[in-house]
Amino acid sequence: MIEEIETKISTLGPMKVDSPILSKRGNVFVRDDERVLINITQSYVNERFHKNKALLSFEMAGPRRKIYFDPSKLKCGIVTCGGLCPGTNDVIRALVLELHYVYGVRHIYGFRYGLQGFIPKYGYELMELTPEKVASIHELGGTILGTSRGPQDISEIVDTLDRLNIGILFMIGGDGTLRAASKICDEIKRRTLKCSVIAIPKTIDNDIFLVEKTFGFDTAVEKATEAIRAAHTEATCAYNGISLVKFMGRFSGFIAAYATLALRDVNFTLIPEVDFDLEGERGFLAALKERLERRKHAVIVVAEGAGQKFFKDQDLGKDESGNPRLGDIGKFLMERIKDYFSRLHIPITLKYIDPSYIIRSLPANASDHIYCGFLAQNAVHAGMAGKTDMLISAWRGHYVHIPIKAAVLKRKYIDPQSPLWFSVLETTGQPSLKNE
Amino acid sequence: MIEEIETKISTLGPMKVDSPILSKRGNVFVRDDERVLINITQSYVNERFHKNKALLSFEMAGPRRKIYFDPSKLKCGIVTCGGLCPGTNDVIRALVLELHYVYGVRHIYGFRYGLQGFIPKYGYELMELTPEKVASIHELGGTILGTSRGPQDISEIVDTLDRLNIGILFMIGGDGTLRAASKICDEIKRRTLKCSVIAIPKTIDNDIFLVEKTFGFDTAVEKATEAIRAAHTEATCAYNGISLVKFMGRFSGFIAAYATLALRDVNFTLIPEVDFDLEGERGFLAALKERLERRKHAVIVVAEGAGQKFFKDQDLGKDESGNPRLGDIGKFLMERIKDYFSRLHIPITLKYIDPSYIIRSLPANASDHIYCGFLAQNAVHAGMAGKTDMLISAWRGHYVHIPIKAAVLKRKYIDPQSPLWFSVLETTGQPSLKNE
Amino acid sequence: MIEEIETKISTLGPMKVDSPILSKRGNVFVRDDERVLINITQSYVNERFHKNKALLSFEMAGPRRKIYFDPSKLKCGIVTCGGLCPGTNDVIRALVLELHYVYGVRHIYGFRYGLQGFIPKYGYELMELTPEKVASIHELGGTILGTSRGPQDISEIVDTLDRLNIGILFMIGGDGTLRAASKICDEIKRRTLKCSVIAIPKTIDNDIFLVEKTFGFDTAVEKATEAIRAAHTEATCAYNGISLVKFMGRFSGFIAAYATLALRDVNFTLIPEVDFDLEGERGFLAALKERLERRKHAVIVVAEGAGQKFFKDQDLGKDESGNPRLGDIGKFLMERIKDYFSRLHIPITLKYIDPSYIIRSLPANASDHIYCGFLAQNAVHAGMAGKTDMLISAWRGHYVHIPIKAAVLKRKYIDPQSPLWFSVLETTGQPSLKNE
Amino acid sequence: MIEEIETKISTLGPMKVDSPILSKRGNVFVRDDERVLINITQSYVNERFHKNKALLSFEMAGPRRKIYFDPSKLKCGIVTCGGLCPGTNDVIRALVLELHYVYGVRHIYGFRYGLQGFIPKYGYELMELTPEKVASIHELGGTILGTSRGPQDISEIVDTLDRLNIGILFMIGGDGTLRAASKICDEIKRRTLKCSVIAIPKTIDNDIFLVEKTFGFDTAVEKATEAIRAAHTEATCAYNGISLVKFMGRFSGFIAAYATLALRDVNFTLIPEVDFDLEGERGFLAALKERLERRKHAVIVVAEGAGQKFFKDQDLGKDESGNPRLGDIGKFLMERIKDYFSRLHIPITLKYIDPSYIIRSLPANASDHIYCGFLAQNAVHAGMAGKTDMLISAWRGHYVHIPIKAAVLKRKYIDPQSPLWFSVLETTGQPSLKNE
Repeated sequence: MIEEIETKISTLGPMKVDSPILSKRGNVFVRDDERVLINITQSYVNERFHKNKALLSFEMAGPRRKIYFDPSKLKCGIVTCGGLCPGTNDVIRALVLELHYVYGVRHIYGFRYGLQGFIPKYGYELMELTPEKVASIHELGGTILGTSRGPQDISEIVDTLDRLNIGILFMIGGDGTLRAASKICDEIKRRTLKCSVIAIPKTIDNDIFLVEKTFGFDTAVEKATEAIRAAHTEATCAYNGISLVKFMGRFSGFIAAYATLALRDVNFTLIPEVDFDLEGERGFLAALKERLERRKHAVIVVAEGAGQKFFKDQDLGKDESGNPRLGDIGKFLMERIKDYFSRLHIPITLKYIDPSYIIRSLPANASDHIYCGFLAQNAVHAGMAGKTDMLISAWRGHYVHIPIKAAVLKRKYIDPQSPLWFSVLETTGQPSLKNE
Repeated sequence: MIEEIETKISTLGPMKVDSPILSKRGNVFVRDDERVLINITQSYVNERFHKNKALLSFEMAGPRRKIYFDPSKLKCGIVTCGGLCPGTNDVIRALVLELHYVYGVRHIYGFRYGLQGFIPKYGYELMELTPEKVASIHELGGTILGTSRGPQDISEIVDTLDRLNIGILFMIGGDGTLRAASKICDEIKRRTLKCSVIAIPKTIDNDIFLVEKTFGFDTAVEKATEAIRAAHTEATCAYNGISLVKFMGRFSGFIAAYATLALRDVNFTLIPEVDFDLEGERGFLAALKERLERRKHAVIVVAEGAGQKFFKDQDLGKDESGNPRLGDIGKFLMERIKDYFSRLHIPITLKYIDPSYIIRSLPANASDHIYCGFLAQNAVHAGMAGKTDMLISAWRGHYVHIPIKAAVLKRKYIDPQSPLWFSVLETTGQPSLKNE
Repeated sequence: MIEEIETKISTLGPMKVDSPILSKRGNVFVRDDERVLINITQSYVNERFHKNKALLSFEMAGPRRKIYFDPSKLKCGIVTCGGLCPGTNDVIRALVLELHYVYGVRHIYGFRYGLQGFIPKYGYELMELTPEKVASIHELGGTILGTSRGPQDISEIVDTLDRLNIGILFMIGGDGTLRAASKICDEIKRRTLKCSVIAIPKTIDNDIFLVEKTFGFDTAVEKATEAIRAAHTEATCAYNGISLVKFMGRFSGFIAAYATLALRDVNFTLIPEVDFDLEGERGFLAALKERLERRKHAVIVVAEGAGQKFFKDQDLGKDESGNPRLGDIGKFLMERIKDYFSRLHIPITLKYIDPSYIIRSLPANASDHIYCGFLAQNAVHAGMAGKTDMLISAWRGHYVHIPIKAAVLKRKYIDPQSPLWFSVLETTGQPSLKNE
Repeated sequence: MIEEIETKISTLGPMKVDSPILSKRGNVFVRDDERVLINITQSYVNERFHKNKALLSFEMAGPRRKIYFDPSKLKCGIVTCGGLCPGTNDVIRALVLELHYVYGVRHIYGFRYGLQGFIPKYGYELMELTPEKVASIHELGGTILGTSRGPQDISEIVDTLDRLNIGILFMIGGDGTLRAASKICDEIKRRTLKCSVIAIPKTIDNDIFLVEKTFGFDTAVEKATEAIRAAHTEATCAYNGISLVKFMGRFSGFIAAYATLALRDVNFTLIPEVDFDLEGERGFLAALKERLERRKHAVIVVAEGAGQKFFKDQDLGKDESGNPRLGDIGKFLMERIKDYFSRLHIPITLKYIDPSYIIRSLPANASDHIYCGFLAQNAVHAGMAGKTDMLISAWRGHYVHIPIKAAVLKRKYIDPQSPLWFSVLETTGQPSLKNE
């Protein structure tokens, strides 16, 4: 699954400053040569040794004994981009508290409304970030910095970083943000500026390559189960009741799959990774009919990116992030289900539930609160050490540094052969839904 | 507000059986001549006395010392009709437990899937209802009996009641169910059957005349606030962010109004009872623009029945309950808002949230659990006493008997001159939204 | 239940200033002679008329067309006293917003930490209260002003009011606070100051006379059910499992009773109002044994003030509010239950749950959010009209003015003959627990 | 941290039966030689290779192509032991569904009330477990099988297994249960029975060696934060308010530590793993005083096993599981704090919150629902393959088989040098609390 990716982390220069942590606590430091294997199966390790090949591994995150920046002179920036995600304010808060209390950094600025915040023409003021300012923000959904979608001119962004003399920029965002971060790093390097860029990956869809779980995903899945519960109740209270729930998930069906596993009242889970037919003997509609005949009700969960083949003849344009607009699979399935049973003269009661933003705009749950704290603390350690062009990720129980360029190589998908999808199939009991 | 309505309760005949409660507890009995004033202001009372007119009042609910039915021979039926409502299972449960444990009734049947449950052609079996069967159902949303919409043949319904020898039929439903209940009573009377019909009014919209609050409304409002919270978070995290939330409320805006008061982050609340214009100097769009200019974000709540004048040229047909289909005011406003700001070249970020069934399919909250218990207990007392063609309602802190015919005279609306609407206006700060 | 109480509201003087609401909205004003009957049964009304006696009634709350204070010059104070209650911040918030936006009052001060806030020796600074300051406080439990228990010198309090030139003091507190408010009013009158005192009654125990429901009670009951749920789970998972839950309720068992009705898994509810024996054939322990034999588990709910007769020989002193310290009935019952079954050689598994402050320190639920808003708005209307020495209460569906002296005449209790207690008994199935 | 432990899994015999999964799905099988490294750092791997030592690894869990038991003849048993834990019913449910639907096992029995369920003298009947029986049990806290504490005679247990011809016994329990499981396996082996014992480790304290996270822990931490929130509200609303919260955690402070990280309003976290002094210049009481002087409020979280050195002179006996009874550190700290500030004449308001069973008796949250499903499915795969004397655990992102004897070697503790504890210290800001 993990091919030969780049795992070396870039740095701004040698780490010569003593860490201020040194005087505070015992030995909590991590060395740069401490690394975590990417593939941790014994067969892989044996094979690599046998072939005399190096083992792929990630640099371990954590505080370094020597750091790159002098905290007293350092200015840091934080920006949040893209859609909302539970825990974003937790990350902002933990970045500020770690920079302030642990490293003694006194100049921390929030850029407003995503990448727009770097562009002078929007005229947004910086938000000064202090411990007082962020004290309770983890109780709030969203991001106190605001956000926006879509790219901005890289050169203008770096102009702003240069003008404000930002030493570390923390970027919280998804795939597009990671790509922008990488370009910003390239431009910083070209100009030989001393500015580190550390990304904390954020996407409600949980589909970033090399990132085991994005923060906020747990919270979103928990909230998503409420929609399934409602769907199940509506379906069972009608004779031949069918409920259809649509969840976020443009390219991957992680929310749909995990929410299915969490509540286990779902009979069909449709995701972008797994093709399905509508008509035909083994298609979805026939399977739905068979289910209704047997149990008199059915609950269907569909990820928004599923079944896009049904829209392939339509030109739907692009959204503000530049992604191709998706066909509305929820409404499409509604119509097709209605038509199908109407043709068969089988009365059904069909309910459609789209919790939409409700699952992503709430505060983090306890588990995400904790996770966000660790991500942000390690992001600060990395930035202070002068690491750059990297992101923080949890990997196999450790926090690690991953080059951004490795993480944007491709997306993370649900493997239809994985225990995860196998478990979903066992839970729903759904057949293959393909005519052959 | 309360005109000269019928307040006299019909009965099947004299109450001659000793209540089994008698031997169990002290004196908890209520006499038939205990009545609660409808209008409880002093000026009204004085005026009526001055004019020598009788005071309008409702018969008080509660256990009677003598009852009509012999519990050991009695068979009771329960049916739930129309849309789901939190607490329906609480009512079923409390009916069964009160009939079984307090009165000793041993034959209680649930009719399945609403009024369809009485019609032989559907072939649904009765569900026998025992204390064991209903023990934990209050933890579940929906109704264990299932439900359906729309009318059924009254004569067939009464045939079934007659054939099964049902003595008391408890009907849990909304406006349409109350009207059906009344017709069933007329037919029962015509056939001189000994069957009492007691209604427990149910509607998520809280718009039944003479019913202060329908059960489940509290729970629905609580859940509805989550959608507003999401809307507020989304709106504030974007520059010129606008969120639009649609709630149930075909003819009245109670959910919209109460949810607005409960969270107080709403800037515009649009309900069926209060007309508004879109265009024009004082119309909604201009007011929204003014709000955006001032605060850079806005949250709009709209009840599904609001602004139906904008669809008056369209023939939308009728739904399965026979109600005229409403124009989709949510989608309509979305389009109009987008167009308006696009015309003005003002970039906005517009989010639409429709929690739909999520707010009605959950279990009751604590307050509704308690309320449902009292409603059902009093329904049983009324039925055992041979009262009929009536519903149970809370009135000014007492539980009372109200003739169904009085309650279906008209709907309950939000009075635009009431403290309730005045309070909504103060909370949102919205102007009149009418061009004059 | 309602005797001949004083219902006349005191005022500072004639209302001569035009209400600023006048120019904003239509006619929403309430006249001073609009009154709500206290006893609203027809028999009572008829009897009074027959005897030619006046009907007892409360003055209706709401905005007056003419007010007493000139808003531009007015200074208002707010103080919160006693134990925490959900919704207190809602009340503070709504007071400030109503004073500021509806009446145009610009000087609103919070006194810190209850009555201590008036006493110079504590040295607490005033908190200036603005719409910005209170914007989000309804999301927080507790009170942003802080609180304290116990009395302070009335003369010093009035000195402070005089020195600061406070025109309206809003006091949020329970029985002790109401008594202090009354004394403050007497002292204000003696000094012929122009200061109005308006109370908003607050107690988690819901036991203030003439107050149908105190704010926060609904929220507390909802949270309390979680402890019962835990108790029920623990009890049913052990063979002969017994769970005992203690709730607040010094003099009255409202939380215990309503929480019992809300979850309905309780087998014994013990409250201060209803005496019970431990030993003896019909005592609690024998009844508990009988329950265990029959069902193998039992859930017991006890209000902290129940069974105080068992401590009558102990001198427990007084708490900081000056109330006699209660015996710990929870721990006492634990010991007695353990001893009893140990004597009988019946193995049991006994679990004790005391959620204590968890049920009172959380933010208000939706229903209490709404309720607090109405209470505070009406408190402001009353204060602006120059009313004084009164509290705001909901009465039979209206908001009314009640003289404080009437409300402190006695406490509100659960009447063992009431439908409420009857319903608890039916729910628990518990026998009388008295040996005769 | 990981020494040379036994990692080889015992089996009943060769796997010769074709897995029934084979015909259903594609290739989802795991081979016995697929293994996951225990220590996954590169330095460890390199060192082992350098020293020519084998790498320690765990056998990977998952379905095997060939299995040991013939499903049509197999009888399985399930037992739950020890204290309640969120998710236990999820595990039972997933075991039953996996056995029934995936492998076609038709005889599954639940033993009642823990190990007592095997002992004839208690007279408990078996509970037959079917898909219908377990369909909704994941919505409930506790365990439908009931539970008990303490050991039972191993020989009698194996007699029962033999008599009932149980082929796989699934044991859900903690440290004591694991030890019992191991002894049962020894006895089974001695008698050369063909019975596999698979454990799913369960403890709310999360302190089982080699088990990264026990199920239910996430849910418990989430609920625990509510108590901290209440504590924080109470503390901040009083002048010099101190709140003390006690959590479960006999030997380890995981709940205390994670709940601290999840809410971040805690100022002192006291756990069994980290010694502290009360008196003295750098002791806890002086630090608390310093905190109060600076911020006027403090929140303290204490694990029940913390500070046991203060009780070392008391003989507290043993509990029913045979563990030494702990001194009540909560009450002890209350007294000592009160005394200390009373001696200094500093008035404080001290509140004590012990949520006790509330955090462990609730249903699993979404994350634990999912986790329990995977644990149980893998337990079934292991059992069907004839593995025995092992437990299922998640390790570094994989599910693995671990010999029970390895897991009971010692407990898992919080390492005071770990990033976890370092993060707690940064969050609380607490000093060392040791006088030197």
